[in-house]
Amino acid sequence: MTKEISESQSEKLTEILRYININSSYYKRVFAEKGIDIETIKKVEDLTKIPFTTKDDLALYNDDFLCVPKSKISDFVTTSGTLSDPVAFYLTDKDVERLATNEAEAFRCANGSENDIYQLMTTIDRRFMAGLAYWMGARKMGAGMIRVGPGAPFLQWESIQRFSPTVLIAIPSFIPRLIDYALENNIDFKSSSVKSILCIGEPIRNPDFSYNELGKRITSQWGVKLYSTYASTEMGAAFTECQEGKGGHLNPDLLILEVVDEEGDIVDEGELGEVVVTTLGVEGMPLLRYKTGDLCNVYYEPCICGRNTTRLGPVVGRKQQMIKFKGTTIFPPALFDVLDTVPEIDLYQVVVSKNEFGNDEISILLTMNLETPLFKEKLHSLFKSRLRVTPLLKFITAQELNHRIFKQEKRKPEKLIYI
Amino acid sequence: MTKEISESQSEKLTEILRYININSSYYKRVFAEKGIDIETIKKVEDLTKIPFTTKDDLALYNDDFLCVPKSKISDFVTTSGTLSDPVAFYLTDKDVERLATNEAEAFRCANGSENDIYQLMTTIDRRFMAGLAYWMGARKMGAGMIRVGPGAPFLQWESIQRFSPTVLIAIPSFIPRLIDYALENNIDFKSSSVKSILCIGEPIRNPDFSYNELGKRITSQWGVKLYSTYASTEMGAAFTECQEGKGGHLNPDLLILEVVDEEGDIVDEGELGEVVVTTLGVEGMPLLRYKTGDLCNVYYEPCICGRNTTRLGPVVGRKQQMIKFKGTTIFPPALFDVLDTVPEIDLYQVVVSKNEFGNDEISILLTMNLETPLFKEKLHSLFKSRLRVTPLLKFITAQELNHRIFKQEKRKPEKLIYI
Repeated sequence: MTKEISESQSEKLTEILRYININSSYYKRVFAEKGIDIETIKKVEDLTKIPFTTKDDLALYNDDFLCVPKSKISDFVTTSGTLSDPVAFYLTDKDVERLATNEAEAFRCANGSENDIYQLMTTIDRRFMAGLAYWMGARKMGAGMIRVGPGAPFLQWESIQRFSPTVLIAIPSFIPRLIDYALENNIDFKSSSVKSILCIGEPIRNPDFSYNELGKRITSQWGVKLYSTYASTEMGAAFTECQEGKGGHLNPDLLILEVVDEEGDIVDEGELGEVVVTTLGVEGMPLLRYKTGDLCNVYYEPCICGRNTTRLGPVVGRKQQMIKFKGTTIFPPALFDVLDTVPEIDLYQVVVSKNEFGNDEISILLTMNLETPLFKEKLHSLFKSRLRVTPLLKFITAQELNHRIFKQEKRKPEKLIYI
Repeated sequence: MTKEISESQSEKLTEILRYININSSYYKRVFAEKGIDIETIKKVEDLTKIPFTTKDDLALYNDDFLCVPKSKISDFVTTSGTLSDPVAFYLTDKDVERLATNEAEAFRCANGSENDIYQLMTTIDRRFMAGLAYWMGARKMGAGMIRVGPGAPFLQWESIQRFSPTVLIAIPSFIPRLIDYALENNIDFKSSSVKSILCIGEPIRNPDFSYNELGKRITSQWGVKLYSTYASTEMGAAFTECQEGKGGHLNPDLLILEVVDEEGDIVDEGELGEVVVTTLGVEGMPLLRYKTGDLCNVYYEPCICGRNTTRLGPVVGRKQQMIKFKGTTIFPPALFDVLDTVPEIDLYQVVVSKNEFGNDEISILLTMNLETPLFKEKLHSLFKSRLRVTPLLKFITAQELNHRIFKQEKRKPEKLIYI
């Protein structure tokens, strides 16, 4: 990052620290307990004087993070709650505008312009921040948007044919279903208006930026360009790939990023670490040094695209999602990646549970039509060769599996559950 | 309506006519064919020189109504398609802003203020205009909003308990389900934060403004105030009740309203007629004298609340939804009203079909637990006494009925289907 960027970040940091010091009962308590004088924090490097904020802090003291009276709240949001109960986030009108700015910038980074038409395949309901961010961002950029929401392949294709969107915004594991629906219904998807897909919620690349199995599966069938984006409710901002596809770019106006090792020290170029964010310009619930739990490789070198902002590689896993299975450490994306290589598998759910000894167990739910000795044998050896372990396979009806994965009350398909 | 209002409307009409005359290929054709000089249309009364626009015109010449290049479209919307295939509507950025203005005004009319927190129980997905309008309106008014979306009683109550909304926005037939869920799960709904419910999509009143059976059912169990609102994608504006509950108020800045009889003549105070709208200030797809098909009683007299804008009573029916059953004319709301009086009935679907002679048939789908001779007898005589006819009763599992009514791909519960 350039000197200019870091100076501008330092200024914004000073601003938000003063704001928090007046308005956040949580951080006022932390500052008092730790004897922190925020006036001594002049630049990004000084941030280390402040302790990390964890997911547990957020859950335990949720409303203490709120910096405005509730009457100033414009939008009430909750986190997905992948690993625990959903946490509340409160957006003021200014925060909604920040979200729009963030997303318009993210769209532009992914080669978008006011001439694009976006088809939104995630929900704006269910207290979900991302769906709203996309809609606000497209409007801010002057682009068009078709708010279709999740699932419903028929309606997705009908919308594509009716309104000719240029970009889809989707959870990438939905795209093979969309392609299958087109194939089954003789829809000429290859000559559709769609040029690219903005992929959210799941990685489409390996840490070396080559497509992972899901990415390969999509692009081998459909000549579209994939852009990855990584974001979370807590950061209220996104890391989105440019056309070079070498990691998601930081928006330095909205976030200070630290990628840290187990000891909390900044990791070097290309190394894996936990993503830690300090949110700039947030009015409702600003966070200082928030540990996301997400593990990514970080790249500080300028990008070929000309941007010199820090980039993050795909999320390799979440710290709390680390599975210790038969002595091997596995993150769920590695399991997805194996399953995505198998063309026969259209639907799957990974179930992680504890056995009687408190150890992790992994089961894979698949559709009944695959339950043949040959297929089981094939999948077992694939897992063995790729991950050195073989999860348990369970076969249920396609209807039941569909029902388990695409729950009406959930915002995202449940490819992974912990029981 | 005052002289001021009608002068202001005449000005806005002149403006939109000039705009349409330049930009709408559909209306340019109509003006040419009928030899209409728009400069001779100086005031609202002159509108009769222009022919009505029908649902068929919209469907047949959909894109000919569009007045801007597609790159200027911000939001792509479709109508619900209750009676035919969905029709496309195109909103420019300015139209989205008009939607926000309309809804903020509607909220204010229903006694709302910037201190209210709205819980949205309809979707913002599925290319639905209303959901978006509510969100935009609440933000414009400076109120808060919890975007929950349809269904999911657990999530609705969790949101109410977590965020203390003051107003729910809901399809009223969902409310008995919400109350039942509270009763079954020992949720103290009577002392919740909810003060009122903005009811969309279905009437809660009789033409004399007393609550209909659904309205009675809700208010007898829950001490909340109900406000009715009537709107459609085509008008991009809403008629919303004030606290007097004497019909939905016209927003004269956004719509010119004509309520007409079969001959197309304006009906008198209190009479029933078809709602016809001319949309003011619309940039994407303005409509002139659009026949909605909705039948309402109209009230021109000033309201007790002090507003002197025209009001519409509840939608008595839709012209195309008129059922001729065993020689009797019935509109679906009359059937709903009978069914809503029966406390045992939690779920129902009205199925209208044609028999071999081309006549209408009505079946009512109910849950199996009600299939007793006593209950059937009771329902038969109720229909007989209220509507003089007895529809066919069919009993299926609650799960199947639920599945038929609350379809994931639909924006609204399907209480009525035509097959």
